[in-house]
Amino acid sequence: MKKLGKLNQISSSDIRGMDKIKRLNLVNHLSGYKSANLIGTRSERGQSNLSIVSSVIHLSSSPALIGFMQRPTAVPRHTYKNIQETGYFTINHIHKSFVDKAHYTSAKFEEDKSEFEHCGLAEVYLDDFFAPFVEESMLKMSIRYQSTYDIKESNTLLVVGEIESVYLPREIIKEDGQLDLNKLETVTISGLNNYHEVHQVASFPYSRPGVFPENIFS
Amino acid sequence: MKKLGKLNQISSSDIRGMDKIKRLNLVNHLSGYKSANLIGTRSERGQSNLSIVSSVIHLSSSPALIGFMQRPTAVPRHTYKNIQETGYFTINHIHKSFVDKAHYTSAKFEEDKSEFEHCGLAEVYLDDFFAPFVEESMLKMSIRYQSTYDIKESNTLLVVGEIESVYLPREIIKEDGQLDLNKLETVTISGLNNYHEVHQVASFPYSRPGVFPENIFS
Repeated sequence: MKKLGKLNQISSSDIRGMDKIKRLNLVNHLSGYKSANLIGTRSERGQSNLSIVSSVIHLSSSPALIGFMQRPTAVPRHTYKNIQETGYFTINHIHKSFVDKAHYTSAKFEEDKSEFEHCGLAEVYLDDFFAPFVEESMLKMSIRYQSTYDIKESNTLLVVGEIESVYLPREIIKEDGQLDLNKLETVTISGLNNYHEVHQVASFPYSRPGVFPENIFS
Repeated sequence: MKKLGKLNQISSSDIRGMDKIKRLNLVNHLSGYKSANLIGTRSERGQSNLSIVSSVIHLSSSPALIGFMQRPTAVPRHTYKNIQETGYFTINHIHKSFVDKAHYTSAKFEEDKSEFEHCGLAEVYLDDFFAPFVEESMLKMSIRYQSTYDIKESNTLLVVGEIESVYLPREIIKEDGQLDLNKLETVTISGLNNYHEVHQVASFPYSRPGVFPENIFS
């Protein structure tokens, strides 16, 4: 690491006193790097919708559950409405090759406009699943909606879904089930609008007391 | 992106049929890249504890709230117990220089052992905050516990806390409040045991309909 100066304290009252944009930018960086996904939905009337989400999180492997945080008053509000109406959505990894198109889905397009068309991403339907996938994405999942938790303190919703199918190239699946996301050029997000590429530096075996982990990544 | 073959489907029944380790490895990769943090706590009796967590998430900027997912039956169980007992914890970014020590905190040490000592990370107390910080971390936060949500479907808890103070070098704070996490060499995690370094490739302005985003990162 390049030599950095001593640490400065920013207190909660400093944060409260910042102007809104500065506070949004700062606090959105504090958790560290975030996942980068596009969520595809379709309304009952058949109108498709696509929105970028940096809050997709792993919840459980058995059952295979995944979730994302939704702010009710913010874009992508059509996403949540469609999920409530239909019970289905897709999650699609964002790769370096189309970060600009993915970011553009965050613009407040009218409800009767499809972000697929406006942003130049191809809408594709697989195995009769109701919600649309992003053709350009090399790791995509069909999700069946399960439930919503109202996180009152933050005025956000945690939306929980079960993974139905995963679509991905066989070459990135390792013997033990791990996936080489670097090979897909899946990006990561910091803050609200910063996109990063990712290069593995280490992999360690399962930790046991008394055995200091040795880097087995090569 | 290097040429990859066509996409293969893995169904929910394929996932259910996998052996446990393979399923854990696979499903833990599907959400994409995850944040990399160490959570510091101390019991009422004064025993410190440190555990690596890849599930820290941004919740809200006003109030400044942050959360993490906790599996009740898994390491770091002492972490959650201490938070319940005392109401305080710290979140500390993990940098490339100490990923091995950070990973080692996931070993199941006895409750009366401090991971700080065992893993070779320095325990530090700042501004009379009850919970310990990681000296080596260049972005650390004191957190006041708020509440827990029981996510029944995944048998996990979402632990919500309010950010009290942030400690970081002034040089990484940009004019508009954004933080240069690349400069800190904060890492990102995939799956259960893969660590990656991160390099920014793009930054875009706030999206507006009709204006295709231009990459302003240089």
